[in-house]
Parts: sequence; structure tokens; C-alpha cells
Amino acid sequence: MTMTSNQVRNKQIKLKHYVLGKLEESDFQISSNEITLELNDNNDVLVKNLYLSCDPYMRHRMRGETNSYIPPYQEGQVLDGYGVSKVVLSNNSSFKVGDCVSSWTRWEEYSVIPRGQRLKVIDPALAPLSYHAGALGMAGFTAYVGFFEVLKPKKGETLFVSAASGAVGQLVGQLARDAGLYVVGSAGSQEKIDLLTNKLGYNAAFNYKEEPDLVAAVAKYCPQGVDKYFENVGGKTLDAVLDNMNNFGRVAVCGLISQYDQGGQDGVYNLKRIINKRVTLQGFLQSDYLHLEPKFMDHMSKLIKADKLVYFEDFAEGLDNAPNAFCRMMIGSKIGKQVITVAKD
Amino acid sequence: MTMTSNQVRNKQIKLKHYVLGKLEESDFQISSNEITLELNDNNDVLVKNLYLSCDPYMRHRMRGETNSYIPPYQEGQVLDGYGVSKVVLSNNSSFKVGDCVSSWTRWEEYSVIPRGQRLKVIDPALAPLSYHAGALGMAGFTAYVGFFEVLKPKKGETLFVSAASGAVGQLVGQLARDAGLYVVGSAGSQEKIDLLTNKLGYNAAFNYKEEPDLVAAVAKYCPQGVDKYFENVGGKTLDAVLDNMNNFGRVAVCGLISQYDQGGQDGVYNLKRIINKRVTLQGFLQSDYLHLEPKFMDHMSKLIKADKLVYFEDFAEGLDNAPNAFCRMMIGSKIGKQVITVAKD
Ligand SMILES: NC(=O)c1ccc[n+]([C@@H]2O[C@H](COP(=O)([O-])OP(=O)(O)OC[C@H]3O[C@@H](n4cnc5c(N)ncnc54)[C@H](OP(=O)(O)O)[C@@H]3O)[C@@H](O)[C@H]2O)c1
Ligand SMILES: NC(=O)c1ccc[n+]([C@@H]2O[C@H](COP(=O)([O-])OP(=O)(O)OC[C@H]3O[C@@H](n4cnc5c(N)ncnc54)[C@H](OP(=O)(O)O)[C@@H]3O)[C@@H](O)[C@H]2O)c1
Repeated sequence: MTMTSNQVRNKQIKLKHYVLGKLEESDFQISSNEITLELNDNNDVLVKNLYLSCDPYMRHRMRGETNSYIPPYQEGQVLDGYGVSKVVLSNNSSFKVGDCVSSWTRWEEYSVIPRGQRLKVIDPALAPLSYHAGALGMAGFTAYVGFFEVLKPKKGETLFVSAASGAVGQLVGQLARDAGLYVVGSAGSQEKIDLLTNKLGYNAAFNYKEEPDLVAAVAKYCPQGVDKYFENVGGKTLDAVLDNMNNFGRVAVCGLISQYDQGGQDGVYNLKRIINKRVTLQGFLQSDYLHLEPKFMDHMSKLIKADKLVYFEDFAEGLDNAPNAFCRMMIGSKIGKQVITVAKD
Repeated sequence: MTMTSNQVRNKQIKLKHYVLGKLEESDFQISSNEITLELNDNNDVLVKNLYLSCDPYMRHRMRGETNSYIPPYQEGQVLDGYGVSKVVLSNNSSFKVGDCVSSWTRWEEYSVIPRGQRLKVIDPALAPLSYHAGALGMAGFTAYVGFFEVLKPKKGETLFVSAASGAVGQLVGQLARDAGLYVVGSAGSQEKIDLLTNKLGYNAAFNYKEEPDLVAAVAKYCPQGVDKYFENVGGKTLDAVLDNMNNFGRVAVCGLISQYDQGGQDGVYNLKRIINKRVTLQGFLQSDYLHLEPKFMDHMSKLIKADKLVYFEDFAEGLDNAPNAFCRMMIGSKIGKQVITVAKD
């Protein structure tokens, strides 16, 4: 049992109030306190947070709705979420000082993790530490289970991915290319399209903001129609892809980010297609598949070791930039996975 | 080989022109010719049509769209569809004069069925002949495969059915009650609601036209939430049920009739629910399951013999009333399965 004590600054990011419409930086509050690094309870762990993951599901928690699978944040309280941290103090025999851990932590510099819950020791040699907040973390796992378990892909099929250059999308594309699919994606800037086709293994991609007719765009870039759709955005893109689905197609409904800020005003109009074409839409949560995490890590480690994985990250430096980073992610003003660097080690 | 010849009147129902908006009686044309009852080609069968089935999918074929699973009707041509017929002449060794057959026939008094295609000899002792145009025909088979194969029901679950008193819906409810589910339905009149709860085994039902808040209505009548949804109508009802789905619920998307006349203007807004609740929506066509027809007939025969099947039919007498009957079915001004009686034998 380790027991030291010293004073440090602990900057924190809080949600000021619930937000239903467009989220702004001013909806967050940054505060700073002096705290004593110490542990009182048995089995607790104190970590220093290194990287925090910006995840769209957190947006839901900022709405104050209580009927979701995860409770809302409390107004005026520090945010919590996925991250990568380093153990500073430990009363828990599973973690020792200096361990790098993938964590369910809080948006602050130092966090006490009661009973070390949901900490997982990671191997700093496998990949950059920040990957454990993205490619090797929740986003990567979401790509893996959505692709393999929900879409049940077959070689030669055409896969469409929306928000294709994002934290999840860029991995779906790579997993799919590796599995022999024809992979097409959409994203919101020319720079992202170039990344997709030049670096991320996408066979084709288009900027949905520049296409006057999304149905025609999907048809053009998916000349064989769409067999599998990894859905991250919803709204007009979903309608356009539904209109291009092949018989017995499958849609993994991972996210509908185009509807998060506005409370779902865009209707979906092409559901009739799912009868004609016998399409299945399956909503899923990565957290239902946690038993597959070892398989996932194995799959990803092999790709990394074979030099077959590329992962783009967009780092916001310091907690002061966290509110801005989160808002930028929501509207697509970042490239790849949005990460907040709290400290480098 | 039978070869007789005589002159008879042959009344026919034709579609005048394609219709995108609301279908009216005046969009059909009734004509009458003298024909000679005769067969020229080997293997052909000449039938007298007894009962014709009014089916909503026929509405799609009246739009002139070519991108569906079934080609459109031709303007100015006789309609075709499911029916019950009697063999009058046969050049086909599988069918003899006097056989009752369930048929893919035309909306006229006498039809030549090339090579006897899609005729199936039926047992007139099993049930009223007209049942083979409904409960024991395509509608019944749709209820059977949608319920058992797509919804994968479990005892004790809550099933919701829209258009619950219709050709398909009234059977879904009975299959589900028999399988131990809690069954709730919606339909468009108080008379239908009474039928559902008093005669058709529904545990509860409501008139969707009288409910100001459909979400609240589904919640009220399904106090345990909805595990399985047999979807016949789409639009606002779909949104209301999605909002009440339980975790890992399943939706069998059988039809979206509320959208057929208008080309799909109602958007669906609650798809976000399918992520939270991990819901699967599966569009299906009964025709993909034809290998299960013997199992279906077996299941239905057992229910009939055990006096466990009720089936409400709404008969329009004579082909002259066929256009009206079809339009009435589309807007719900009929009770149960809409059948056209062309002749009683
Ligand atoms: N079901 C689960 O278990 C699970 C787990 C993790 C994530 N998710 C979901 O997966 C999706 C992707 O998450 P992520 O972490 O990889 O985020 P991300 O893609 O890195 O970031 C979100 C991206 O969505 C795009 N976007 C925003 N508004 C849009 C709009 N109106 N129309 C189209 N695209 C829009 C933006 O990129 P563009 O430049 O392309 O517009 C933005 O960068 C999200 O919907 C998220 O909620 C689900
Ligand atoms: N996928 C397949 O293989 C397959 C096969 C057969 C049938 N279907 C579909 O299954 C559904 C039921 O067919 P069915 O033969 O049993 O027809 P049905 O229910 O006997 O007749 C259609 C009924 O739909 C209801 N309806 C009409 N407009 C509506 C609206 N705007 N909102 C709500 N309800 C409305 C009406 O009853 P109310 O009084 O309740 O409004 C009407 O009587 C249809 O959607 C059909 O296309 C699919």
C-alpha cells in the first residue's frame, strides 16, 4: 500500500447546464483547485490523466434526458468519459504506481478511481498511448463489433460508411478493406476525402456537403449498390443510402450524429425500401459486446504489428482547449479522432 | 386432355392509368367481352375465378414504378393477383376439371393460367374456400412468417400490431396469443377495437384516430413496453412504437400502408431509439419464405381443427364492386380481410 501526499493543481471541465440545441464552448466551465494527492479508501487508485477521448455519445449526456442507456451528466459537475491515464497512487493490488491504464475517468488532471473500477493496464509498447483513447479504445471496439458482429460482412460486398474519416469510421474502412470489401465513405471536407482515398484504404469517397443529390452520389460511388452500411450520421445520408441498398442488405446503426444537436428534426423517408429490399437495420451499443474485447485487441495488435493500421488523431493541447475540441468534433472541424492531451506522461 | 368450347361473358377490371396520390374508383375501368372457353396450349389451365384477394402491395403496382421487387401493372390492362378459382378446362395433368385451386390469377371471370403456373389444389373441406384468399393464402402466410421467422417471439413478451384487425393483423394476434404473448393492437374504428378485444384474442387495443398522443397511447396499453412490433402502417405509429420499445426489441417491417397513397411524406423521427434500445428493424417479403408453406398449412390446419381460428372477411359481391372494394381497403372502410366474390362456385 502506497501512501504519499502532496499538493497539486487540478484543472477541471464542467458542464454548466443542459443544452438541447447547438452546443457551444460557453456551455462548459473551466475551474482550477489545489488538491492533495492522497488515497483514503482501500482498493482506490489515483491517476494522472494523459489523454481524454471526445465521444459523440457524451453529447446525449449533456441534454439531461434520463431515459437513455446512460445517465445524464449533472449540471455543474465534472464530465467523465474514456481516457488514458497513469497510476500515481494505488491502494489496489491490480494496479501499481507507473502503470499506464485505459480508464473511465474524469475531465480533470488527477482523478481518484474508486476501487480502480474499469481501469485496464495497457502495454505502452504496442502503440502510441493515445491510441488507447481511440483506435484501441471504445471507438476502435465500436468499429470492430459493428463491422464484424452487426454487419456480418462478406468478401466482395460493397460497404458504405458515413462520418468515414472519424474516430470510428476510419477504422471500419480499414477493417473492411482488410476483409476484402469494396469500401466507400462520405465525410465533410475535401481534405478528409483525400485522406480516405489516399491513406485510409477507402476505394472511393465523397464530400456530402458538396453533393446536391445524395441519392445520386451514393449510386455513383457505389456502382454495385450498397450491401452493408455502417451508419454514423442518420438523416439525409441514411435516406440516400437506403435508396441504394441491395437485397438483404444490412445497416449497423451505430450513431445518428446529424440529429444530436437538434433533437432529431430530420425525418427518414425511405424506410419503404427496407421491405422491397429485405433490409435489416440493427441498432447496437458496443458495451453489449465487451466479452469480445480480447478478440478485438488480438485483431488490432496483429494489424499494428503487420503495419496495416493507420490512425489519424487530432490533439487539443491542454484541458483549457477541451470545450472547444468537443464542439469542433461535433461539427466535424477536426480530422480523425479527437483527443485532448492533458499531459504527455 | 379436356377440350370443350362455349361462349361466356368475361367481365374484367383494368387499371386506367398510374396513380401517385389517393386512389379512386374512377382510376379503374370495368369492361365485358364474350369469350370462348377453350384451351390451345399444352399444360394450360382455364379457371373460373371465385374469390379475389385485395392486397395493399397491389397499390404499389399501380404507381408505375419499375424499381420494386415486382413489376408495375400495365395501364389499360387487366389486374392480376391472388385468388381462389375452380378448374374449368385443363390441359395439365396436375389439375382436373372441378379442382378448387388457390391461384395467381387475373381480375376477371375466367382466366387462362399458362402451364397452370402457381395454381395449388386446395381441400374444400378444410375451411371456407374464401379463406384461401386470406387466412390460408398470402395474408395468412405473411402473418406466419413475419411473426415466427422475423419476430422470433418468446412467451410472455409484449407484441404490438398495427392495422391489427386487417387481413394480416387479425392472424398475427391469434398466432401470438396462442404462443403466450401479451398482444396489443391499433386499428381505425371502435368497431374494429371491439372485434380485436372481444373476438380476436387481443389483450388490448386502441383506435389510433382517436388518440391525440400516440406515444402515450402505446405506453398506456403496453405497460411493460413493446418487445416485438409487427409493423403494417409506418409513419406516426412507427414513431410512437419505437419510443416504447424495450431493449433488444425486434420490428418486423411488413408494410407501411399509411405512406402508400402519398409517396412517403411522413418522416420517421425516432430512429435514435433503436441505438439506445438495441432494436432491430427487419423488412421482409413473405415470398422469400415459400419453403415454409407446408409448415404454415400444417400450423393453420391444426388451429382450425382445434376451433382456435377466427377470421373476419369483408365480401364485395361481384367484379362491379371490385374497384370500390380495393379503395375501401386502402382507407380502412372494411372489416377484416377484403375479398371480392366473383362467383360462389
Ligand atoms: N453505438 C455505439 O456503441 C457507439 C459507440 C461509439 C460511437 N458511436 C457513434 O458513432 C458515430 C461516430 O463516432 P466517432 O467517435 O467516430 O465520431 P467522429 O466521427 O470522430 O466525429 C463525429 C463526426 O460526425 C460528422 N458529422 C457531424 N455532424 C454531421 C452531420 N450533420 N451530417 C453528417 N456528418 C456529421 C463530422 O465529420 P464530417 O466532417 O464527416 O461531417 C464529425 O467529425 C457517432 O454517431 C457516435 O455517436 C456509437
Ligand atoms: N411484406 C410482405 O410480404 C407483405 C405481405 C402482405 C401484406 N403486407 C403488408 O401488410 C400490411 C397489411 O396488409 P393487409 O393485407 O392485412 O391489409 P389490411 O390490414 O387488411 O388493410 C389495410 C388496412 O390498413 C389500415 N390503414 C390504412 N391507412 C392507414 C393509415 N394511414 N394509418 C394506419 N392504418 C392505416 C386500414 O385499417 P385501419 O382501420 O386499422 O386504419 C386498412 O384497412 C400492408 O401494409 C401490406 O402492404 C406485406
